[in-house]
Amino acid sequence: MRTNRVEAFSDGVFAIAITLLVLEIRVPEDMTSLGPGLLALWPSYLAYGISFLLIGLVWANHHVMLDKIHRVDRMLLFLNTLLLANVAALPFTTAVLARAVSSGHGQRTAVAVYGGWLVVGGIFFNAVWLWALRRPELLEPGVDRSWTAAVARRFLLGPALYAVGTVLAFFAWRPAIALFAALIVLYWLPISEWRSRGRPGGRAASVRPPGAAGDDPPA
Amino acid sequence: MRTNRVEAFSDGVFAIAITLLVLEIRVPEDMTSLGPGLLALWPSYLAYGISFLLIGLVWANHHVMLDKIHRVDRMLLFLNTLLLANVAALPFTTAVLARAVSSGHGQRTAVAVYGGWLVVGGIFFNAVWLWALRRPELLEPGVDRSWTAAVARRFLLGPALYAVGTVLAFFAWRPAIALFAALIVLYWLPISEWRSRGRPGGRAASVRPPGAAGDDPPA
Amino acid sequence: MRTNRVEAFSDGVFAIAITLLVLEIRVPEDMTSLGPGLLALWPSYLAYGISFLLIGLVWANHHVMLDKIHRVDRMLLFLNTLLLANVAALPFTTAVLARAVSSGHGQRTAVAVYGGWLVVGGIFFNAVWLWALRRPELLEPGVDRSWTAAVARRFLLGPALYAVGTVLAFFAWRPAIALFAALIVLYWLPISEWRSRGRPGGRAASVRPPGAAGDDPPA
Amino acid sequence: MRTNRVEAFSDGVFAIAITLLVLEIRVPEDMTSLGPGLLALWPSYLAYGISFLLIGLVWANHHVMLDKIHRVDRMLLFLNTLLLANVAALPFTTAVLARAVSSGHGQRTAVAVYGGWLVVGGIFFNAVWLWALRRPELLEPGVDRSWTAAVARRFLLGPALYAVGTVLAFFAWRPAIALFAALIVLYWLPISEWRSRGRPGGRAASVRPPGAAGDDPPA
Repeated sequence: MRTNRVEAFSDGVFAIAITLLVLEIRVPEDMTSLGPGLLALWPSYLAYGISFLLIGLVWANHHVMLDKIHRVDRMLLFLNTLLLANVAALPFTTAVLARAVSSGHGQRTAVAVYGGWLVVGGIFFNAVWLWALRRPELLEPGVDRSWTAAVARRFLLGPALYAVGTVLAFFAWRPAIALFAALIVLYWLPISEWRSRGRPGGRAASVRPPGAAGDDPPA
Repeated sequence: MRTNRVEAFSDGVFAIAITLLVLEIRVPEDMTSLGPGLLALWPSYLAYGISFLLIGLVWANHHVMLDKIHRVDRMLLFLNTLLLANVAALPFTTAVLARAVSSGHGQRTAVAVYGGWLVVGGIFFNAVWLWALRRPELLEPGVDRSWTAAVARRFLLGPALYAVGTVLAFFAWRPAIALFAALIVLYWLPISEWRSRGRPGGRAASVRPPGAAGDDPPA
Repeated sequence: MRTNRVEAFSDGVFAIAITLLVLEIRVPEDMTSLGPGLLALWPSYLAYGISFLLIGLVWANHHVMLDKIHRVDRMLLFLNTLLLANVAALPFTTAVLARAVSSGHGQRTAVAVYGGWLVVGGIFFNAVWLWALRRPELLEPGVDRSWTAAVARRFLLGPALYAVGTVLAFFAWRPAIALFAALIVLYWLPISEWRSRGRPGGRAASVRPPGAAGDDPPA
Repeated sequence: MRTNRVEAFSDGVFAIAITLLVLEIRVPEDMTSLGPGLLALWPSYLAYGISFLLIGLVWANHHVMLDKIHRVDRMLLFLNTLLLANVAALPFTTAVLARAVSSGHGQRTAVAVYGGWLVVGGIFFNAVWLWALRRPELLEPGVDRSWTAAVARRFLLGPALYAVGTVLAFFAWRPAIALFAALIVLYWLPISEWRSRGRPGGRAASVRPPGAAGDDPPA
């Protein structure tokens, strides 16, 4: 199957999952004290913000990955479907997280489930990439193998760090949430420095394949 | 109408239906025992997993089919719309299945409805393909007719096997669910072997049209 | 704005609205008598089927229309947005219809609202087309004006017939529903005859622009 | 990353958010007085209409913007994701607005929240544009800088006017809603005049870049 069809379908699932997140923010029942009622929903807003940025990030990285994949075989399609099944379920783990924080009960469980699900998603993500890396016929011709290896190392870092947060959740759920939020923002932001040209020999520059100036390095 | 517009619209429906599946997994009401509450949702997770892989599979096969269809006439569009109406209703039959297994009542009915709906979908799927096969002006020029006939036989196998599961459901719903799950995984996985080149005369090789090395054989 | 962007956005709204229809079919509460419970949902199934085929039809006709539109100005974009707002609200009128028939109360109102909303949508649809027809700079060069006029007459027929059904609903809601269903199926099916080549001088042939053998005539 | 991928993903989020608006219009519970029950939902219809036209407008302007952006760096992607997170949450603020007006309580808060959220969205929108304007390597080659500056001034007007409405809401919520509705319709409609050719020296003409006759000026 052509990669662009998989890309379009995956884009659709990402876009829908990210937009369905809002359905978990319920309008307060009591309109006579709407202001306080809306403020009390802060756990939902926080969970919405984190998950939205997270899915946006996975979407961006998914494109970086598929840009280097020339063809898709059946196993890669299957692994990608598992990844999408993971992403599409994020509105559920997000809702569990928001409800638990809001109710004051079950926060450890909810944060651990949220983090554990990210670990599973990270594993699927890496499975797609590692499956493709081992099959040169699936990759774009002329892909720099030192770049793909560097990217693979970076991709593996994700689930490892999420696993730390998941374990942390059993002891202290607030720092665990803070860790997830920090990871996502960190993944988004420092990358922008990579764009700065003329920084010779930087960390980002070593990851970027030669001659691929127009591509975004992955987070 | 150009096939690519039908493909894009169908992709959208597939992507939305597959992502809406998650809305049927309800967050537990009682947060004071969240762990057990989440575990008790296993029927929802199972139904989510099966239906997600199923829709992903139908999506993939739909592309294999449309890749060979050059033009779309009004009747083919109508049959494709019936197929989409079937796929788009899967979140409902999935929810019925999960609720019945979870409640301990109505499992036979729910599994039979789930399976029967798959049979109907399989019939629509085959109707699209058979309609196109009989009208050479709709097919891509130069399509290998022995390949299309082999594919048609494979496509017909789907509803037949789902019908077996549907009948089985009235006697033993657990094996019927297991059969549906096994069918879907089987359809996904062994295909990856087809990719192995150099296997001369294999079953897959005989299905693949000559000169179409870049195409995925259907499941 | 380029027409293909409007087409892609409209396709998205059509695909989502058509798939959201299923959310209005609620899983029965009582699992101990699931079979009768599912059968009792027949008004929902009927409404789902009618609205699904209807949106699929509007989608198909929308493509026939946009295929002839070369450029989109702001007013056309505005009218198209009104049309999309109408289509996107169909899950609501569909749910009202299903609930009324199911409850045995308010059927006349529900059918009239359903039909009236179709009339409004038909007016928006025609407004898009008539706006474009009067501005040759928006049309594809070389469009056959007798064809566009014939299409415009056919497009106008839709809201007129829906209006008949809407008025009928106040006297007899069952025939009104039957009329809506019949109209939709009629619009879908007979068109397939148009494909038959060699039928000289048929009604369809006179509508088809010369040299546009690859295009679908509108319903 | 290529701009067209960002455009497609953003289109998806816009299309889904705009279509999810309908989910907040709840079918009346009491079918024995369906007519009055449907009429009583007018706040939902009003909120639906305003938000639908609003998202459609943001979508159209988003295209005008991205048409001039040649490449997307990580920071622009991040800002765009924030904008999408804002748009995707509009079904929530829309539902709050409808519920407050319908219940007769909390209208000031609801309208202020609705308006304030538009201000935030406008700021994100402008952040995307201003980020791109300062980085010529991200812009399409040959973009007229006086045009981009004029567009930037127009884009900044949006959040400023929404801020006026937000402040107004605390004193008089009805005029504030009327202001939001008027702004949206004003943004949509007068633009159509810009299309009239031969109007030399008009306000629109001064905004339009020379040689870009086929482009839509932004609202």
